[in-house]
Amino acid sequence: MATTEPMAPRPVELTDHIKSQLNAVSTATLAYQLQARGIRNFFFSGLKPTRPQRRMVGHALTLRFVPMREDLKPQLAAGFNAQRQAFEGIGPDEVLVIGARSQPDAGTLGDIFATRARSRGAAGIVTDGSLRDTPAVQAIDIPIYHRSAHAGTLGLLHLPLETNVPVACSEVLVMPGDIIVGDAEGAMVIPAALVEEVAEAAAEQELREEFILGRIEAGESTTGLYPLSAERLPEFEKWRAERG
Amino acid sequence: MATTEPMAPRPVELTDHIKSQLNAVSTATLAYQLQARGIRNFFFSGLKPTRPQRRMVGHALTLRFVPMREDLKPQLAAGFNAQRQAFEGIGPDEVLVIGARSQPDAGTLGDIFATRARSRGAAGIVTDGSLRDTPAVQAIDIPIYHRSAHAGTLGLLHLPLETNVPVACSEVLVMPGDIIVGDAEGAMVIPAALVEEVAEAAAEQELREEFILGRIEAGESTTGLYPLSAERLPEFEKWRAERG
Amino acid sequence: MATTEPMAPRPVELTDHIKSQLNAVSTATLAYQLQARGIRNFFFSGLKPTRPQRRMVGHALTLRFVPMREDLKPQLAAGFNAQRQAFEGIGPDEVLVIGARSQPDAGTLGDIFATRARSRGAAGIVTDGSLRDTPAVQAIDIPIYHRSAHAGTLGLLHLPLETNVPVACSEVLVMPGDIIVGDAEGAMVIPAALVEEVAEAAAEQELREEFILGRIEAGESTTGLYPLSAERLPEFEKWRAERG
Amino acid sequence: MATTEPMAPRPVELTDHIKSQLNAVSTATLAYQLQARGIRNFFFSGLKPTRPQRRMVGHALTLRFVPMREDLKPQLAAGFNAQRQAFEGIGPDEVLVIGARSQPDAGTLGDIFATRARSRGAAGIVTDGSLRDTPAVQAIDIPIYHRSAHAGTLGLLHLPLETNVPVACSEVLVMPGDIIVGDAEGAMVIPAALVEEVAEAAAEQELREEFILGRIEAGESTTGLYPLSAERLPEFEKWRAERG
Amino acid sequence: MATTEPMAPRPVELTDHIKSQLNAVSTATLAYQLQARGIRNFFFSGLKPTRPQRRMVGHALTLRFVPMREDLKPQLAAGFNAQRQAFEGIGPDEVLVIGARSQPDAGTLGDIFATRARSRGAAGIVTDGSLRDTPAVQAIDIPIYHRSAHAGTLGLLHLPLETNVPVACSEVLVMPGDIIVGDAEGAMVIPAALVEEVAEAAAEQELREEFILGRIEAGESTTGLYPLSAERLPEFEKWRAERG
Amino acid sequence: MATTEPMAPRPVELTDHIKSQLNAVSTATLAYQLQARGIRNFFFSGLKPTRPQRRMVGHALTLRFVPMREDLKPQLAAGFNAQRQAFEGIGPDEVLVIGARSQPDAGTLGDIFATRARSRGAAGIVTDGSLRDTPAVQAIDIPIYHRSAHAGTLGLLHLPLETNVPVACSEVLVMPGDIIVGDAEGAMVIPAALVEEVAEAAAEQELREEFILGRIEAGESTTGLYPLSAERLPEFEKWRAERG
Repeated sequence: MATTEPMAPRPVELTDHIKSQLNAVSTATLAYQLQARGIRNFFFSGLKPTRPQRRMVGHALTLRFVPMREDLKPQLAAGFNAQRQAFEGIGPDEVLVIGARSQPDAGTLGDIFATRARSRGAAGIVTDGSLRDTPAVQAIDIPIYHRSAHAGTLGLLHLPLETNVPVACSEVLVMPGDIIVGDAEGAMVIPAALVEEVAEAAAEQELREEFILGRIEAGESTTGLYPLSAERLPEFEKWRAERG
Repeated sequence: MATTEPMAPRPVELTDHIKSQLNAVSTATLAYQLQARGIRNFFFSGLKPTRPQRRMVGHALTLRFVPMREDLKPQLAAGFNAQRQAFEGIGPDEVLVIGARSQPDAGTLGDIFATRARSRGAAGIVTDGSLRDTPAVQAIDIPIYHRSAHAGTLGLLHLPLETNVPVACSEVLVMPGDIIVGDAEGAMVIPAALVEEVAEAAAEQELREEFILGRIEAGESTTGLYPLSAERLPEFEKWRAERG
Repeated sequence: MATTEPMAPRPVELTDHIKSQLNAVSTATLAYQLQARGIRNFFFSGLKPTRPQRRMVGHALTLRFVPMREDLKPQLAAGFNAQRQAFEGIGPDEVLVIGARSQPDAGTLGDIFATRARSRGAAGIVTDGSLRDTPAVQAIDIPIYHRSAHAGTLGLLHLPLETNVPVACSEVLVMPGDIIVGDAEGAMVIPAALVEEVAEAAAEQELREEFILGRIEAGESTTGLYPLSAERLPEFEKWRAERG
Repeated sequence: MATTEPMAPRPVELTDHIKSQLNAVSTATLAYQLQARGIRNFFFSGLKPTRPQRRMVGHALTLRFVPMREDLKPQLAAGFNAQRQAFEGIGPDEVLVIGARSQPDAGTLGDIFATRARSRGAAGIVTDGSLRDTPAVQAIDIPIYHRSAHAGTLGLLHLPLETNVPVACSEVLVMPGDIIVGDAEGAMVIPAALVEEVAEAAAEQELREEFILGRIEAGESTTGLYPLSAERLPEFEKWRAERG
Repeated sequence: MATTEPMAPRPVELTDHIKSQLNAVSTATLAYQLQARGIRNFFFSGLKPTRPQRRMVGHALTLRFVPMREDLKPQLAAGFNAQRQAFEGIGPDEVLVIGARSQPDAGTLGDIFATRARSRGAAGIVTDGSLRDTPAVQAIDIPIYHRSAHAGTLGLLHLPLETNVPVACSEVLVMPGDIIVGDAEGAMVIPAALVEEVAEAAAEQELREEFILGRIEAGESTTGLYPLSAERLPEFEKWRAERG
Repeated sequence: MATTEPMAPRPVELTDHIKSQLNAVSTATLAYQLQARGIRNFFFSGLKPTRPQRRMVGHALTLRFVPMREDLKPQLAAGFNAQRQAFEGIGPDEVLVIGARSQPDAGTLGDIFATRARSRGAAGIVTDGSLRDTPAVQAIDIPIYHRSAHAGTLGLLHLPLETNVPVACSEVLVMPGDIIVGDAEGAMVIPAALVEEVAEAAAEQELREEFILGRIEAGESTTGLYPLSAERLPEFEKWRAERG
């Protein structure tokens, strides 16, 4: 585990309580809560995880790629460039979010950087571009959300520009320090300022849906049950009390 | 199992004989038979099943989504709206076909409605939009053909409009009551009026291809064998007789 | 195994040594070596294998499809047409590369032709169109890289035109006889004239990356290690010597 | 001019006052007013007018096309089908809105139907598909908003299904009777229930922007001026009074 | 004018009679006649002419571009390569048809080659890629159908491969010697073997439509008139006789 | 004209000599020179000018838009935000380059900001998004390169983030201060460090092509002439001397 200062900003504290709430609810439930607060654009469409069975929660450490321009390669791609800064700086409770303009036709990271991120204790990686060395990366114990597999390197289409700036990832805006959550459905951003209330509301919603689903599985109609009507509320409260 | 009247029209009877024929042949073989009858546009391109090992056969119960318009949300999305009507009305031998303009960026159903459909005995679901709660839905024993996974709800892009009208699903026209078939390759529509002859011809074709494949596996050339030439027909007939 | 003359040209000899090198390195490593030699466009983007655990290496036997035109169907699709020539002519150390203009909405081969290719000892198949009978094809022991699954036949969109001509496959140019390699990441072309040096350099690179990855897994930084600096070279050479 | 009953519903009256307001403001200004009321999806993206110098205002008479299916052609494309109903029924103050799933690769109307619509006094036509006989249609004095030019007929991709139902046109929902407006920028829908207040507010906004633009042209900064600050309001009111 | 042998094959003779028929009818009418003969894929979608007022008729001289591969540039792009062969070989009654895989992001010809084609008397050019030097080319008196304008050269994406082979242009198959026609709507192919009967039938259809359009402009309904019913035929025949 | 300090950086001086060279050559010629120096990605594909007859030359003043996120609207879109900073800061010899992720479905500027830019003496504007108030903007004497026309405002899809940072515009990287050039073909970037030599080489190339074009127009072959062979060089030099 790395012992350095956190690289991504911490606009809110990701307490164990919030983390355990986020780990216990689905991205679908979190999405519902964001939409209820007027946020429409939060889900990284078209990305899939290498580790669907793993949950991912952390602060966004962002990395912005820009289109390749050969004359700038020496300036932007050499030395301790932005890509290297990100992978050498990331730590626990951080998710690297790469904005690569949703291009499917070049890798944006491979097995060595993925291993380094895991070794530094990173919570996960989201790229809206491709993964490289995908078969090897599948075996590394860190969840990576990516668009596709492509053997070609970064340099076919991209230059690393900067870290810890706002990025567009799968056409979703991510601010450094925002909360990133992932499950087998995909990954999404929760604006930092909303995470506490959204996690709380999602936990409550998930409980209701567990109750509802049980009734539906028992053969009931969705009418009056989903969403839960005032008439059925006492029954739910009783179920909740008994469940403990 | 639901005991109500069937919701989808029954322009033809889906007899046990036809059902068992359809369950025994591949969508590829059915596609060949439709193309031989001049039908070109029948396969729901780009959709994949949650349960590739399950076969799906049933009459189309259609559900038409239209683009979200905020002023119409109270009128179209509230109460016993078209989406709810479909999921509360569907029954055995029926496949829900959702026309959602092939949009990948919003869920069109989730685990609660999927459970309700299974509970009512529905044969399956086809949506040309996204699935929501995909990890939970994967565990429900009903085949669902969908474009992608997206945590966002319907309301990001869609309003439910009406059921049992013609719909475009993955740019394929489906009439209420048409026959929908699915296997691990994907799902497709068979026009109701053609289902009897197509099922019959497909069963015959499948038998021939079993014979042919056996010969190819034994090392023979495809020439004269695939398609079956007049010279090889007696051999096939003999094989068929012996096979019983 | 077929005993006929090879159908694809052999601009270079694919020796056992080169084959074993190519089988031991990833497409990502080969991609790096091609890019280092100024080649940018070599990876068949968007295609996935039926057999991700199998490696594929062979000379390209090309097959060019052109858009369907009904008046030319009798002339181009009948008899011993180009598709049949390819599948009846292919043999060991050959990979069939089908250029189908990246169209996802029609099958380009199915289980019978796939079986015939395997039976003739072909090393694999790459198509930038769809696969048909996909569930059955998955069970055949030959790797097939394809864009998607579609039950419809060739004739919805394509006519077979000719074999052993240059083709564009997933917008990558393949010359007859070029070397095609595939792993779980995807498939790519290596220009015939470059294969010997690329295979050699890739084997060396793979060894270095194995060393580097071991160090990264042990918790080291990528700085000075990846890529390998002059300072670390002796350590690598020692590791290589001990490894034997 | 036709003397029949109006074909499209009239959920609101399109008074001369409202019409003159709508004719005097740009679609950009109307767009601003809809967005201010929470409507986000109203502009027919990607369509261009045959007559950019003409304004278009009228009630939506809708026509829904569905994907071609050869077996349904006799039933849906023959006789007094939905396309013919629309063109023979349309009249003054009506705009035909064709929902053709945004397909660029088949004509959806040509010079004869365009002439018929003009002859019946229609206010205009919007299709999210292609125009046919485009050179001839350019010469007909009726504004037609369309995606592209294509010589092929409807039957390549479409069947006419029904009129006066909700349609998706360029992924925008149009209800029969809604108000359609077009200028050289493009065309858009105004929900019928909002048209009176939107027209009023747009007229006021256009006046302010005329004042603002005059100041900007005179070299002023946009700060405090656009949008108009409280400080500048008296100046605007004076300008308005003098302008008369 | 060039005096060399024609470069494109002449599977049929393009007589003055056929040429004058093709020049007098629209591509929309020709499209109708091809569709009536079962041809569905003939129009070069998405291409626009530099000279919309000019008609274009000629035999297809084809030129096939393949994706750039840097190692093959010396072999395919140098000397008297396929592009140069085409522009130095084309002559009167010939239309150069370039198949460039519909790529919008690189020029496929510029002002110098366009001038050379005009100087050799070529009837026109169709490219499914971009035009370069577009402002200068607009001033050259030869119709060029193209997808877009792009300042970059061929070498960004393409290599010239060969002439006088079948090509896919805008996903339409063109055989060398086929007849290419263009007007302000766009350009299309007529299979050589069909040109005589299609031209004849189109001329007849155009005459009928002129009669019909006159009646529609006079205020008549399309019913019974378009298409022309048996009842109206004598009236048309009288009009035709009087028209002379 | 504004008298403030230039807002965009000036990594090189855009002398009158360089400006007159850039104004005298086509973007196609400049493109050739960039490609000759290994730059591949410089042309803003898919954008068209409001004023094709005007040339545009200036330093890039960049403006970066990010995807709309409703919770950040108060923070990023209010007050003297990045969009306003750009339009109130731009001046002579500067071209505003807006990176809007190539989205066609929302306006990125309208007539008021366009007027303000012209009033401040800006050389032009490039946006890879849409223009708003397009009919009014067409009348303003400043060249604007844009993707399409859309009546909706910025807020449908975008938030203004920052100025004078590297931006991706039509997937081309632009650094603040780079040189932007536009003609009727489109617009492109010239890396600041290359502008002097590229302008010089382009002027020479343009002269040669004028000579070549004259010979081609006179009926000569392109062979040996285009590109100019050593044999023809003296003739060109003579022509150049006589031309003066």
